[in-house]
Amino acid sequence: MTDSEVRRDLRSLIDRVCADHPDAYWRELEQTHSYPEAFVDALTTTGVLGALVPEEHGGLGLGVGDASVIVEQINRNGGNAAAVHAQLYTMGAVLRHGSPEQRERYLPGIASGDIRLQAFGVTEPTAGTDTTKIRTFARRDGDSYVVNGQKVWTSRVQHSDLMLLLARTTPLDQVEKKSQGMSMFLIDLREVEGITVNPIRTMVNHETNEVFFDDVRIPASALVGEEGKGFRYILDGMNAERVLVAAECIGDGRWFVERASRYACERVVFDRPIGQNQGIQFPIARAHVHVESADLMRWRAADLFDADQPCGAEANMAKLLAADASWEAANACLQTHGGFGMAAEYDVERKFRETRLYQIAPISTNLILAHIGQHVLGMPRSF
Amino acid sequence: MTDSEVRRDLRSLIDRVCADHPDAYWRELEQTHSYPEAFVDALTTTGVLGALVPEEHGGLGLGVGDASVIVEQINRNGGNAAAVHAQLYTMGAVLRHGSPEQRERYLPGIASGDIRLQAFGVTEPTAGTDTTKIRTFARRDGDSYVVNGQKVWTSRVQHSDLMLLLARTTPLDQVEKKSQGMSMFLIDLREVEGITVNPIRTMVNHETNEVFFDDVRIPASALVGEEGKGFRYILDGMNAERVLVAAECIGDGRWFVERASRYACERVVFDRPIGQNQGIQFPIARAHVHVESADLMRWRAADLFDADQPCGAEANMAKLLAADASWEAANACLQTHGGFGMAAEYDVERKFRETRLYQIAPISTNLILAHIGQHVLGMPRSF
Amino acid sequence: MTDSEVRRDLRSLIDRVCADHPDAYWRELEQTHSYPEAFVDALTTTGVLGALVPEEHGGLGLGVGDASVIVEQINRNGGNAAAVHAQLYTMGAVLRHGSPEQRERYLPGIASGDIRLQAFGVTEPTAGTDTTKIRTFARRDGDSYVVNGQKVWTSRVQHSDLMLLLARTTPLDQVEKKSQGMSMFLIDLREVEGITVNPIRTMVNHETNEVFFDDVRIPASALVGEEGKGFRYILDGMNAERVLVAAECIGDGRWFVERASRYACERVVFDRPIGQNQGIQFPIARAHVHVESADLMRWRAADLFDADQPCGAEANMAKLLAADASWEAANACLQTHGGFGMAAEYDVERKFRETRLYQIAPISTNLILAHIGQHVLGMPRSF
Amino acid sequence: MTDSEVRRDLRSLIDRVCADHPDAYWRELEQTHSYPEAFVDALTTTGVLGALVPEEHGGLGLGVGDASVIVEQINRNGGNAAAVHAQLYTMGAVLRHGSPEQRERYLPGIASGDIRLQAFGVTEPTAGTDTTKIRTFARRDGDSYVVNGQKVWTSRVQHSDLMLLLARTTPLDQVEKKSQGMSMFLIDLREVEGITVNPIRTMVNHETNEVFFDDVRIPASALVGEEGKGFRYILDGMNAERVLVAAECIGDGRWFVERASRYACERVVFDRPIGQNQGIQFPIARAHVHVESADLMRWRAADLFDADQPCGAEANMAKLLAADASWEAANACLQTHGGFGMAAEYDVERKFRETRLYQIAPISTNLILAHIGQHVLGMPRSF
Repeated sequence: MTDSEVRRDLRSLIDRVCADHPDAYWRELEQTHSYPEAFVDALTTTGVLGALVPEEHGGLGLGVGDASVIVEQINRNGGNAAAVHAQLYTMGAVLRHGSPEQRERYLPGIASGDIRLQAFGVTEPTAGTDTTKIRTFARRDGDSYVVNGQKVWTSRVQHSDLMLLLARTTPLDQVEKKSQGMSMFLIDLREVEGITVNPIRTMVNHETNEVFFDDVRIPASALVGEEGKGFRYILDGMNAERVLVAAECIGDGRWFVERASRYACERVVFDRPIGQNQGIQFPIARAHVHVESADLMRWRAADLFDADQPCGAEANMAKLLAADASWEAANACLQTHGGFGMAAEYDVERKFRETRLYQIAPISTNLILAHIGQHVLGMPRSF
Repeated sequence: MTDSEVRRDLRSLIDRVCADHPDAYWRELEQTHSYPEAFVDALTTTGVLGALVPEEHGGLGLGVGDASVIVEQINRNGGNAAAVHAQLYTMGAVLRHGSPEQRERYLPGIASGDIRLQAFGVTEPTAGTDTTKIRTFARRDGDSYVVNGQKVWTSRVQHSDLMLLLARTTPLDQVEKKSQGMSMFLIDLREVEGITVNPIRTMVNHETNEVFFDDVRIPASALVGEEGKGFRYILDGMNAERVLVAAECIGDGRWFVERASRYACERVVFDRPIGQNQGIQFPIARAHVHVESADLMRWRAADLFDADQPCGAEANMAKLLAADASWEAANACLQTHGGFGMAAEYDVERKFRETRLYQIAPISTNLILAHIGQHVLGMPRSF
Repeated sequence: MTDSEVRRDLRSLIDRVCADHPDAYWRELEQTHSYPEAFVDALTTTGVLGALVPEEHGGLGLGVGDASVIVEQINRNGGNAAAVHAQLYTMGAVLRHGSPEQRERYLPGIASGDIRLQAFGVTEPTAGTDTTKIRTFARRDGDSYVVNGQKVWTSRVQHSDLMLLLARTTPLDQVEKKSQGMSMFLIDLREVEGITVNPIRTMVNHETNEVFFDDVRIPASALVGEEGKGFRYILDGMNAERVLVAAECIGDGRWFVERASRYACERVVFDRPIGQNQGIQFPIARAHVHVESADLMRWRAADLFDADQPCGAEANMAKLLAADASWEAANACLQTHGGFGMAAEYDVERKFRETRLYQIAPISTNLILAHIGQHVLGMPRSF
Repeated sequence: MTDSEVRRDLRSLIDRVCADHPDAYWRELEQTHSYPEAFVDALTTTGVLGALVPEEHGGLGLGVGDASVIVEQINRNGGNAAAVHAQLYTMGAVLRHGSPEQRERYLPGIASGDIRLQAFGVTEPTAGTDTTKIRTFARRDGDSYVVNGQKVWTSRVQHSDLMLLLARTTPLDQVEKKSQGMSMFLIDLREVEGITVNPIRTMVNHETNEVFFDDVRIPASALVGEEGKGFRYILDGMNAERVLVAAECIGDGRWFVERASRYACERVVFDRPIGQNQGIQFPIARAHVHVESADLMRWRAADLFDADQPCGAEANMAKLLAADASWEAANACLQTHGGFGMAAEYDVERKFRETRLYQIAPISTNLILAHIGQHVLGMPRSF
């Protein structure tokens, strides 16, 4: 697709920031399990993290398509946009459903990067993808809510000032529909007590955590929108997230295809570049085709989203296609590099681990297929 | 993608013609290995077969994107556009490279369907996809050329008035570059002698043939464009063909997905519709995703083609993706139907056989991957 | 695996019979939708169709492993053992559960081939693989049973003297367990009236049929074993059938691998045998590996069966692996042959269609996976 | 397959050692990039590391099939046999080709574990899998050889007393056949100088290294067998290595299948164990089938090896099948665990990374396919 001028500018900008934070930067962070502070600071300075915040609130007022270029290009350069993508879109819930006070108080800071809203507390260990089963409970108590419960896979809490939290405010057995009775809160982590954060060590260098709430008292003004409607607010934001994650996979995919192609040209074994072997060349070419194809679906979903049209099927398909394509490219790239593919020094193994996550998060391939089968093709619910 | 009004009209038109030629029509043709004369006549009457002929020559003056809707929709309805797709695009060589006399003499008849130009004689048994190795030779003799040689996979010769022929006019060992010395001829099959046609029985009900040329004398005026430049003229037309074939695969894919989804809803085994089983539902859903994704690439290629921009990579990718997706859908559909998928009465097995062809023709998946690997990704030539 | 002498002899014998019935024989049968009478006669004459009948009843008294060599080798030579495999194993039910009178009356003729027991009436259109839902009912009436109902996919009825039939003798709603109340009958088709046979046209040249029973009166002596235990008798024979079908797939797979390898060596395009291209060679090699691997599982299952040990998991795995491998080989072979793979003359397309059936019959891949998942790995029932 | 008593005993023995070194042991080693010293010590104490050393030299005198049970069972219990497999088989070169003095001096110590022979210096960065291109050179100088050059992927050097080294003793341009002129040396690392070892950080916790030889003087008595025949000695040992690696993959595969099945039974989402979903259950079941199938080929290869029969094709096929199956199982297991699959605590991600290596090492899937295509199926050399 031909980029608009805005998107070309965004790509150039990200390329420049990434040039200062090359492969070795990300590789060394892994050694110490560290968050990419320097990179995020540099990115914040450019202002792009406010891409989706309206201009009236100090942001760039761009669309999800534009924002997706940012995360794509970070991954395309060998970095990992997971460190910042939540800052781009999590504020959407505040923007769409927050009170004027919440918007005024937080959005300008989020747009400038002075305030980080990266933590999104939804998933719980026993509920999994069945969100309506969450047990974290916010009990109204005068001008406050008191929160108790546990979240898991809450990423970047340690590098976030705010957390968007989904909690039950009415017990499951007291609501008519199980999707009712959950509420969304915007918690200022700098001001509350009783939250314990346990980092989870994973296959990738993401900061992600278990979060325990022990009588955490938050002001009633932390409620976003209406009490009991939190689940719907969550659904609202999912398509944007899927488009962004699809774009990250596209960036990964292109990085893998480029590295694989290059190595296949340079590496000589049995007196010929290994790329001359169809056993090497064809899997790379096929991965390229799938990455490009997934990219078209990502743009289709993004365009629909930015035109305020329904895009659930497209966003899900974009996520599935892009995650599959980047994983295919990752395997082709690792295989092309032979033993060197396993060596940290080539960064292939790092990106390989990173992109594997997107077969699972933020939604698994199975749930996407179930969505398509049931809601697009009209087959019965299968679970 | 949202269709333009022209495309919506084309779809409706084809749907109506197909409604008169339902599954049973195509099924019974198979029994007698017959060409779909009645269907082609009905289609001809509508005028759509002149879609790509400019209005000044009596056609509709539409683009390849529009024309692709025609063939897609035939396959989408359970038919087989292979019977007519050549009539749509083969005349492109005459249009782009023919003399004013050739254009005036033939294009109006081709546009109206009074003249059929469906036969395209390129492939030879010993040359295969290495077209420069063709041996059919046209020797200049006064005001004529005398043609000797053999073609294979020349489809619809028996239902064509004209044949576009590629023949060497300079022997391979006398040209500088092997792509030189081949010329294109437009042969009026109603006026020449010495051509023998041997039908080839295949897995599908396509009329395809071996064609033998034994001192076939054709007028020098049959030469299209300049002598020796025929290979280049062939290349010119390939992208349009790939887009059309991709569209046929999309049509097939959607037919398979719809039939599979419907049967999965209706068929009850173990007291539940089989579509409730993820082992049935997910392969159908996945095929749907791949069909839709391939469709986006088909439109990308068509749009570039119609905007006169380079589209070799996109047309090749569209063909690969669409052929893979329709084959995936075909397998999911056959498997969903269990034993009934093998029964002629359900038409699944017929379409299954028909769509398998597109893994091979008009270009194999391997050659597309080699093209992408070498010309898009810059890896060495692998063969 | 190193064959025993018996198996080597069986292979030689089959090779000789097949040499008289080459590719063209099978190809031409397809044109007329005919049963391979001449081939079956020749095979019958050798006596091998009585392989599994004990010597005391006039058979060869061999094991399922030995018998599997027979069907494997027919398919390995380009033929189709489906025409005779039922004659090999269907009599097993009579052997294991029949009365002394039934054994004496029928087994010698089955062993010699004078009596054909090829028809096995189990599947019904509405029951599908959920056999307990069959509706064909045999009502006791004095010294007779009167049968009404319908079967589907009953193969070779027109070339069988006997039919083994499963019918309900107690309605489903009157049994404690749904697997009870079905009985097995050995019907002499030469002696009964009221059976209507409708052939089903399919993708392959198998004689298969719908069979309608309209007040068909059969003697009470046709009951095999005890009334109400028919389902268990059916289960008894399934593992032998799966081993034989696995062996047929192995035979197909080897035929495909050999034809593909040979063509890849002989066919020269772009000045080199196409087998030099890894894009051609590797899929053939990979298919070979999978065929050989499936063969080991086939032998594992056969050895267990012949040693009277439980072999349900192994027989199912052998069937799944062999069917997958032959289908993989079929696709590699077709693709290797390019356009010629579609031509009837090369027989690849015929075998391609034939081997596709084994993804579905006699049990689908999905049901095998469900069996393994539930009964071997202990996961919950999934349907 | 039913284990012999020896193999049952070996399995029990390994199970006991592994019980003392559970998942957490291996997980924590990763944190510090440490070699499993305690585990290797415990294993050494049992004497099993001398499995392949003949009894006359103090070993157990077992076969490769038996030895493969050892490494399989380590991986089956969640460990990683790569830490010790070289100790099992590397001594084979000394056993088969070493002088009586070498055998007497080293084999008893290797059998008891007092001497570690784990380092095998073959691969070089520029030669890759084209071993004849190695540049490390051993120049004869009186009673010594002087070695210069570089190796890569030389594993466990830091935990080995001896290194088996392949070096050129005649330059490539002075030999008739490129496979000539290489020699094998048994170097006592405790006694030489000039070797520099650079550890390579990789995706897995293997100790692997670059090794630099700078005028390393070794006694002439370090030569194994005849000068110039080293390459053939290397080939001799490859099949044993492939069988062992196949067995490790089988062990991995079973670990993954068991963990996945168990988690699929225990994990409840949407009010049902996730294993009830065919989208979860079927991939696990399929992986199981492929693991069991690969296991049969592993035993086929091992049996041939231990019967001194040719087993090149079988050992290669076993390696390919087992590596593919364990990787399939790894992906199914990770996917079944959802986000928890990425968490170090579940060990799935560790084993996932570890088993990925076997798509590449000790020989890549591509080279196996090339071997099968060329040497088994008779197609042309493709590279």
